[in-house]
Amino acid sequence: MEKKNVKPASGKLGVMCVGLGAVATTFITGVLMVRKGLSKPVGSMTQYDKIRVGKGENQKYLPYKEIVPIADLNDIVFGAWDVFPENAYQSAVHCEVLKEKDIESVKDELVRIVPMKAAFDRNFAKRLDGSNVKDAATRWDMVEQLREDIRRFKAENNCERIVVLWAASTEIYVPVCEEVHGTLAALEKAMKADDREHVAPSMCYAYAALAEGAPFIMGAPNTTVDIPAMWEMAEKTKMPIAGKDFKTGQTLVKSGFAPIIGTRCLGLSGWFSTNILGNRDGLVLDEPANFHTKEVSKLSTLESILEPEKQPDLYTDYYHKVRINYYPPRNDNKEGWDNIDIFGWMGYPMQIKINFLCRDSILAAPLCLDLVLLSDLAARAGRYGIQRFLSFFLKSPMHDYTQGEVPVNHLFQQYVMLKNAIREMGGYEADETID
Amino acid sequence: MEKKNVKPASGKLGVMCVGLGAVATTFITGVLMVRKGLSKPVGSMTQYDKIRVGKGENQKYLPYKEIVPIADLNDIVFGAWDVFPENAYQSAVHCEVLKEKDIESVKDELVRIVPMKAAFDRNFAKRLDGSNVKDAATRWDMVEQLREDIRRFKAENNCERIVVLWAASTEIYVPVCEEVHGTLAALEKAMKADDREHVAPSMCYAYAALAEGAPFIMGAPNTTVDIPAMWEMAEKTKMPIAGKDFKTGQTLVKSGFAPIIGTRCLGLSGWFSTNILGNRDGLVLDEPANFHTKEVSKLSTLESILEPEKQPDLYTDYYHKVRINYYPPRNDNKEGWDNIDIFGWMGYPMQIKINFLCRDSILAAPLCLDLVLLSDLAARAGRYGIQRFLSFFLKSPMHDYTQGEVPVNHLFQQYVMLKNAIREMGGYEADETID
Amino acid sequence: MEKKNVKPASGKLGVMCVGLGAVATTFITGVLMVRKGLSKPVGSMTQYDKIRVGKGENQKYLPYKEIVPIADLNDIVFGAWDVFPENAYQSAVHCEVLKEKDIESVKDELVRIVPMKAAFDRNFAKRLDGSNVKDAATRWDMVEQLREDIRRFKAENNCERIVVLWAASTEIYVPVCEEVHGTLAALEKAMKADDREHVAPSMCYAYAALAEGAPFIMGAPNTTVDIPAMWEMAEKTKMPIAGKDFKTGQTLVKSGFAPIIGTRCLGLSGWFSTNILGNRDGLVLDEPANFHTKEVSKLSTLESILEPEKQPDLYTDYYHKVRINYYPPRNDNKEGWDNIDIFGWMGYPMQIKINFLCRDSILAAPLCLDLVLLSDLAARAGRYGIQRFLSFFLKSPMHDYTQGEVPVNHLFQQYVMLKNAIREMGGYEADETID
Amino acid sequence: MEKKNVKPASGKLGVMCVGLGAVATTFITGVLMVRKGLSKPVGSMTQYDKIRVGKGENQKYLPYKEIVPIADLNDIVFGAWDVFPENAYQSAVHCEVLKEKDIESVKDELVRIVPMKAAFDRNFAKRLDGSNVKDAATRWDMVEQLREDIRRFKAENNCERIVVLWAASTEIYVPVCEEVHGTLAALEKAMKADDREHVAPSMCYAYAALAEGAPFIMGAPNTTVDIPAMWEMAEKTKMPIAGKDFKTGQTLVKSGFAPIIGTRCLGLSGWFSTNILGNRDGLVLDEPANFHTKEVSKLSTLESILEPEKQPDLYTDYYHKVRINYYPPRNDNKEGWDNIDIFGWMGYPMQIKINFLCRDSILAAPLCLDLVLLSDLAARAGRYGIQRFLSFFLKSPMHDYTQGEVPVNHLFQQYVMLKNAIREMGGYEADETID
Repeated sequence: MEKKNVKPASGKLGVMCVGLGAVATTFITGVLMVRKGLSKPVGSMTQYDKIRVGKGENQKYLPYKEIVPIADLNDIVFGAWDVFPENAYQSAVHCEVLKEKDIESVKDELVRIVPMKAAFDRNFAKRLDGSNVKDAATRWDMVEQLREDIRRFKAENNCERIVVLWAASTEIYVPVCEEVHGTLAALEKAMKADDREHVAPSMCYAYAALAEGAPFIMGAPNTTVDIPAMWEMAEKTKMPIAGKDFKTGQTLVKSGFAPIIGTRCLGLSGWFSTNILGNRDGLVLDEPANFHTKEVSKLSTLESILEPEKQPDLYTDYYHKVRINYYPPRNDNKEGWDNIDIFGWMGYPMQIKINFLCRDSILAAPLCLDLVLLSDLAARAGRYGIQRFLSFFLKSPMHDYTQGEVPVNHLFQQYVMLKNAIREMGGYEADETID
Repeated sequence: MEKKNVKPASGKLGVMCVGLGAVATTFITGVLMVRKGLSKPVGSMTQYDKIRVGKGENQKYLPYKEIVPIADLNDIVFGAWDVFPENAYQSAVHCEVLKEKDIESVKDELVRIVPMKAAFDRNFAKRLDGSNVKDAATRWDMVEQLREDIRRFKAENNCERIVVLWAASTEIYVPVCEEVHGTLAALEKAMKADDREHVAPSMCYAYAALAEGAPFIMGAPNTTVDIPAMWEMAEKTKMPIAGKDFKTGQTLVKSGFAPIIGTRCLGLSGWFSTNILGNRDGLVLDEPANFHTKEVSKLSTLESILEPEKQPDLYTDYYHKVRINYYPPRNDNKEGWDNIDIFGWMGYPMQIKINFLCRDSILAAPLCLDLVLLSDLAARAGRYGIQRFLSFFLKSPMHDYTQGEVPVNHLFQQYVMLKNAIREMGGYEADETID
Repeated sequence: MEKKNVKPASGKLGVMCVGLGAVATTFITGVLMVRKGLSKPVGSMTQYDKIRVGKGENQKYLPYKEIVPIADLNDIVFGAWDVFPENAYQSAVHCEVLKEKDIESVKDELVRIVPMKAAFDRNFAKRLDGSNVKDAATRWDMVEQLREDIRRFKAENNCERIVVLWAASTEIYVPVCEEVHGTLAALEKAMKADDREHVAPSMCYAYAALAEGAPFIMGAPNTTVDIPAMWEMAEKTKMPIAGKDFKTGQTLVKSGFAPIIGTRCLGLSGWFSTNILGNRDGLVLDEPANFHTKEVSKLSTLESILEPEKQPDLYTDYYHKVRINYYPPRNDNKEGWDNIDIFGWMGYPMQIKINFLCRDSILAAPLCLDLVLLSDLAARAGRYGIQRFLSFFLKSPMHDYTQGEVPVNHLFQQYVMLKNAIREMGGYEADETID
Repeated sequence: MEKKNVKPASGKLGVMCVGLGAVATTFITGVLMVRKGLSKPVGSMTQYDKIRVGKGENQKYLPYKEIVPIADLNDIVFGAWDVFPENAYQSAVHCEVLKEKDIESVKDELVRIVPMKAAFDRNFAKRLDGSNVKDAATRWDMVEQLREDIRRFKAENNCERIVVLWAASTEIYVPVCEEVHGTLAALEKAMKADDREHVAPSMCYAYAALAEGAPFIMGAPNTTVDIPAMWEMAEKTKMPIAGKDFKTGQTLVKSGFAPIIGTRCLGLSGWFSTNILGNRDGLVLDEPANFHTKEVSKLSTLESILEPEKQPDLYTDYYHKVRINYYPPRNDNKEGWDNIDIFGWMGYPMQIKINFLCRDSILAAPLCLDLVLLSDLAARAGRYGIQRFLSFFLKSPMHDYTQGEVPVNHLFQQYVMLKNAIREMGGYEADETID
């Protein structure tokens, strides 16, 4: 077994979170507690999953760390930007996701994580209003300030490597504009010309990260890295990019449940999904312009799993509707309700209803950890650009749509892709197919 | 592509159903309507599924029929045994599963399907009572009469081949008894000695089928073919056997949903499943001795999907409970309610509730068709004994427990096994692994 | 027992439905079948309910008909207006609410119910488009034509009395405008001036009915009769008016369930209601302007049941949200999902979820019958203007808001009001209080 | 307003709980916190409800305390018996119903509540096993020891009055045996003869309480006070008795929801109720003999609400089934799932599903408080024997079945009965009827 081409995971790894709200503080608190042996990183593939390597007599099941060099949790240093000046301890208490006794157990470390001023533009999130924001003349100036933040953080914390993770809100819908987003040159020009319509703040973070040699992960459904300009930038800097939109509650279930229907050749006449949630994410999504970004991301899930062109009798004209409702009594305890209208033998109808009482940040936190560690791994393995093997973790997986690529949304096919990438980086033979 | 070793599907195929109730009549009516172009066989893999064959540039997606020689629906002739003398038309109307206009559309053919007298012993199903039963001196006599039935049916209908399908009730729990069930010789001896405790009527059907060169399929959770004696008989007669228990509503969902949890490394603390149903099956299962047979079958599903030995932090000591409740207002419209208690990051709990308003016979009918056609295929391909590739269709898949084999319950691994068998029989390369 | 003041229910009663869609045809088909002894009018208070009259030793339980003179079903003659020219038979088949064999059983009578041209203005229901509409120069002209329709129908069918029932769509939200809706004179002036913004077509129907001496019932949440001008008209013509919005699925449950919470002094932190439905009503409500009318109606339900001023610890600041989603796979089979966040002892939270798989028209039909028969009764009893005793049947019960009256939404208080009115009209003593 | 006949609530009130588990400790902790202004007694009628007194112009809404003299929370002293020796603090922590910070806030007082040895017989609760039990030669000896406990507690705590509240487990089903339970003399004789089959330990508590001049409340479904012998004892000692079975989760909903169906004249074809719970109560009820006691109690709820004799078309032959399942992952967080099959206009079917994520002890605690305070009030008002006005709080309300009395299960009729009793004791006119 040779792990050629994969550099070791030595030295400190700086994890810089855009947004220090419920998701980021749950992620950080968990990692700090796990390091002290006070908690378990349940839900994390890099910490728990064991995959088969080898075949026939040689097959064995190994955790990822025994196959590829993954950064140790003890080597992680956390940083953050946020529009609110609260430190990670204050924010964690404020978010009410975790029990106080959990937060208190790592209070000293959390207190020291104080957010840098955020690159923010209220036009992209009208319902948010914070004071801890950068004063930037242009989008290009935003980029420069963020790059400076990254360099300073890296130096001060003696980091070998940095990963930048977007764990902030959904911005308003920014459609891909060929003229601005089509090439790196065009994007840079627009940034310098301070084109505030087409250049979202999130793009400044992504650009800055890549420019500083750091992988960038988009955890919200923002367009950010889903444009040719960013792909070009990633190629130029030899850095991985991943996105978009953490696959947490309802879509996780959907991408796992739709394959049951499809695999058994049952028909689908409709799928109605509604969600109630009361955290900051819910507040932002209550704004139609922001919801639209999310809706596009969530609706795409079924398309590549239940294919009308392959099974016209079964999947033509099903009605798919997704709703999100801001409902403060729930806080971070998101609740999904799905109604699925299927039909079976002779076309007779049946119904399935799924009620998921989940917790947004509890589901997102292990995704943060895995995306960070695997993006860092990919960078060390020389894999750059779109990381399709990370589709498993994402609601709306990146793919080169300019080449007609289709995303893979089927949870178990995504899993094969994930395993194959780990196998390959570990010097093992990958499966040739995913279905 | 060479399909060596697989004989063609020429001539008539006799499908003899044990039980002419809701499941069998729904299956039969559907096939008859599909033949006339009046309905669609939704849910049937042999009629709808397309699988990849070949790899890389050579890969293509083909329906099963283009890979292997599967019997044509037009070549099927139906027969049945039942404790009630109603013909298939009367029974279908009586069961109230299908709309009258569907049943009427093939009335002529249904009326001609009149059940032969059943081999029945009321001690195995106390809540059932029918008049159309054989008068048999011993279990061996039962076998002889059933063999005679099969031979006559085959001759009268000019069939090339026969498949016998159990679509009747759950018998009381018959634990495997090494002395009686351990060898074929012992079983035959017990039949001749009329050992009514250890030899269930279903065993007589299975034995008779195999003796007459017909594959046997056990659609209920009965022990029947799950004993070494039957494996020996199947080997001796070179016939396939398949079982047990059609994977219809709740367990279908369970075997598809548990992999979502397991694949994402989420923890499980409990899974509670309850069911309400009001058909004859529900009535029989209201008897504790019969329910126990079902319970054993349904409880086994999770065991091989969420493995404590592989993930002790996640799957040790989860509480799994299954209940079935006879509830006449529902008739055949079974309803499942599952409550799943999971835990995620840092052990925080979440809940998933699945409410499945399904229809027992609508879900079972395509399984009948597939199991019949694929067992017949297997026989022509020279595959005999336990057919593990049919696990996909079954709640409690057969496996040679005397050799320490474990069943595969994971829906998507079962699907890989199914596809691989089709590929192999079709002369294509199968995947080497299922995970 | 003297029933003084109540005229007998002799002669034919003409029931003229505005809208001949799912609700009206289900109502009509049911009545026709009941008349023939082919079906039961389940859900109808006038046909089933028995109430106590008398007290102590003299108390007894009587059906309404034995207390007051209610029109006989055999004396009803049906008429209708609709934007589509389909007759009642065609429309019933088209709506797919009822089984074909039910519709066929009264086909002859249904075929003869052909809708008159509707008074329609597409600005009030953008998603609807029909050809069977009146050509009216002004709103006043609309009124004149409708009056002519009523007179002709009454004469042709030899009716003693007429009731006009709105069983059509929700119009866009028409806020009460003091200048136009404040007095009868102002309203008539606006009609003549063809003020199409403030005078909805539904107002023309109501005005025409009252002018012709017929009670008017508003089954949708339209403003129509909820304005002082109409109250004046009702007083002038001595006719009853009733409205608004049939209390069918979700709100029926809400107005019955909220009292459980309130009666037990449990606290409420939030109530989220969502609905999926696929009939014409759902289509119209998918338009935000029309949904708003419905939302206002549905949101008001809780206000007078759970009162913050009476129980500030329990009902201050609960979050109430109502959503309706057009979802075609369901057709008329509306489905409601309510999530109720309550709190108990020491403020500890609990959740209740109610999933109602109902049928819009099946629930509305008996309300149509009762509202028609009881409005006719009220007219004969000399009760005119707002009929508060009919609140029981309505989502957003009429009340004189100009006098600070509050609506009664509590189902069981509404029921006491209904019973008391029946008792009084029957010459019995009513209860003095409703709580 | 004269409150003649009601003695004032002066001096200390001793509340002696049988069982110091989840319900009792939640009740006690809440009262202690409320006294300190640290919590709110949500769900308690005596602390929150306001009822109308007077009629017409004189009507006003008053809290109970302003109508009748109710004991002040500050005057309550708590005592308990339990089979486990843990004090109230230890038990509260152990039960995991309340947050630790709530329990800690009144730790000092809780620690001082140490249970006396219980009168226990394991044959009545096989799944329980505790060491803190009395050594009693006969049932009569049990009674004597309990009376001594009560006298000592009363004296030591300087109490004016005592109420004994059963907050312990469900015993096995004890059918009423005319010979033993028919008269007080017979019961006393059986106690002295140590008839352990017919005299449940709970009967010893009840007898002892009454003998010592204390009202007795049965919070479980045990037969205890539901026998003529105890009614005779209550009459003899002029003490109130109340029972049986706290109306908490599912039955609360049922007794409130069934009236919605009944009031609207909708038909019922079936009602299926299942429950999962994991506390000590659930463990005990997992034993069939104990479950049977509960089942009888829970099944009776619908009978007097939906009456077939009054509405044969609507309520004849509905199928009612109740299941309880022990499911440890839930602990005290009981979850109910109800499926209700109704039918409407023309017999068309609809379904309602109610999922109640409740907390057993949180719902029971305010009932404990109200039953204690109102039983004490009744005693001071000279009301003795069966207290029908407390039916509101109970699943299976006591009634004199020997006289053909039927229980009132309809939540809103029970509420009228409760209000009327308060009005009467307060010197106000009560309503003459409850429907």
